[in-house]
Amino acid sequence: MRVGIVGYGNLGRGVEAAIRSCQDLELGAVFTRRDPAGIQIQTEGVPVLPYAQMNQMKDQIDVMILCGGSATDLPEMTPEVAGSFHVIDSFDTHANIPTHFANVDAAAKKAGKIAVISVGWDPGLFSLNRLYANAILPNGTDYTFWGKGVSQGHSDAVRRISGVLDARQYTVPVPEAVERVRSGENPVLTTRQKHTRECFVVAKEGADLEAIETAIKTMPNYFSDYDTSVTFISQDEMNRNHSGLPHGGSVLRTGVTGFRGETKHTIEYTLTLESNPEFTASVLVACARAALRMAAAGDCGCKTIFDLPPAALSPLSGEELRATML
Amino acid sequence: MRVGIVGYGNLGRGVEAAIRSCQDLELGAVFTRRDPAGIQIQTEGVPVLPYAQMNQMKDQIDVMILCGGSATDLPEMTPEVAGSFHVIDSFDTHANIPTHFANVDAAAKKAGKIAVISVGWDPGLFSLNRLYANAILPNGTDYTFWGKGVSQGHSDAVRRISGVLDARQYTVPVPEAVERVRSGENPVLTTRQKHTRECFVVAKEGADLEAIETAIKTMPNYFSDYDTSVTFISQDEMNRNHSGLPHGGSVLRTGVTGFRGETKHTIEYTLTLESNPEFTASVLVACARAALRMAAAGDCGCKTIFDLPPAALSPLSGEELRATML
Repeated sequence: MRVGIVGYGNLGRGVEAAIRSCQDLELGAVFTRRDPAGIQIQTEGVPVLPYAQMNQMKDQIDVMILCGGSATDLPEMTPEVAGSFHVIDSFDTHANIPTHFANVDAAAKKAGKIAVISVGWDPGLFSLNRLYANAILPNGTDYTFWGKGVSQGHSDAVRRISGVLDARQYTVPVPEAVERVRSGENPVLTTRQKHTRECFVVAKEGADLEAIETAIKTMPNYFSDYDTSVTFISQDEMNRNHSGLPHGGSVLRTGVTGFRGETKHTIEYTLTLESNPEFTASVLVACARAALRMAAAGDCGCKTIFDLPPAALSPLSGEELRATML
Repeated sequence: MRVGIVGYGNLGRGVEAAIRSCQDLELGAVFTRRDPAGIQIQTEGVPVLPYAQMNQMKDQIDVMILCGGSATDLPEMTPEVAGSFHVIDSFDTHANIPTHFANVDAAAKKAGKIAVISVGWDPGLFSLNRLYANAILPNGTDYTFWGKGVSQGHSDAVRRISGVLDARQYTVPVPEAVERVRSGENPVLTTRQKHTRECFVVAKEGADLEAIETAIKTMPNYFSDYDTSVTFISQDEMNRNHSGLPHGGSVLRTGVTGFRGETKHTIEYTLTLESNPEFTASVLVACARAALRMAAAGDCGCKTIFDLPPAALSPLSGEELRATML
């Protein structure tokens, strides 16, 4: 199965690496809206082509993995590419998923293609675990904790403050809150009780550090509802200790069963990821395999991870899966 | 959707309770191979009928949940009932799943019915998490820890020792082993390093306690490969503190991504269950819903949880799921 990558940033590079660890998949081409000559990929003999030339590769690519951003790229790109190829995207603006789904579904159905949207870990694997846990324990409460991990949106917000040269923001779950949920206590938790925010900031020489710290801690939506720590460091230390993009978190559901509704259960799913984009890319690649399986079975239209039979994500046959993993 | 229960032990009672917490499902009848007059169920107005009369209820039952044992009941019962009804079972003899699948598949396909086998948490939800984690991280290692929980097979083995009146055996994961796996250390662990076994035993008056303890600790297959503790207690204490059937455990996969294969990730799924049969029953009921959805879509034959689209387990529509859980 030949996979195309559209967009070659952190996520696109992660997809290229993930394809190399799958024996049943190979990279067909990388497409970019930048100058292809400026892009150096890791797989020998694979072309880097302009986005506009995609349709000339219809016979060489079985499925396209779209590695653009959710804000402006994917809302246009996914319906457009789904008009010619099976596609996978990682659209993650939760509030706009219904609209995105409708647009992509119309385009994919018209072209007889499969489009799997909002793939990754949240939305994606976390969503899947919410679904399973809710279906199994209808009487219960959901909890999601994110981190410890880098929030790119929050890091960007700090970088926009006057006097800031560079910044990295970590979202950190409050350990006591996680323990209270795990213990089955079923707590009601405020925003502040669930997560703290840790900011590492490189300031311009002579900048007013106190003013920067206040600007961060009082920023509405981003920080004012949280206990936030601000640590000023050098650019050197930033590059040395904060260049990675780790992330993760936990989805928990606590619920009750039995005639009296008194028997407690806890379902927990936890991810600890050294690289958010590389892991997200690995989920995209597994779902690309599933898309091709569903297309081969004659299906088309827009799907989410909720619609993919789990077996379709695996390179193993049903028989192999039952013998080795059931 | 009207559900029938076949067999009314701990699991059957759990299924009855689970159906009551689902607004889209109702209990149609309970079937038993015992004398129906001796069985008191909790749902008013629902008949308890002899197993042999099942086929007279073809128009009143949409799906049957089979609550028999894997050793002798299900190998015969599941193919037989799948000849007339959509069925769900919790067949858990891992080594015999391929044979059971083939027998049930033939019967279900002949009758145009859906049969979902080996549903529960292991096999079941644990299997599902092994599949997803392997599909996403092809370069990695799987770990499964069971407990803390009651193993009925091990409890029975202790009860068969001369001088033993009653016994309860808990399987307990070794905390250090779990921590080493979680930390990404990727350890190779022996049987003894992964789990310990705790036995609580009520002995006959005048029994040779030392002989009982030795008989337990040296029992091949069951205990000899483990560090086992034996505690003698009164029948009173047994009834008071050890009457539940808690269980659970963790499935972990640690793996690497990236061009150099150096970026580490850990995926962990953990269940903490106060009642093994009630939780297993809740999984069976969610899969019964999925079976009816797949049957309505025209599918038939034997399935496992690997084949069920996640959305099919939920009472919510695709639109509702995307809006609330994605």
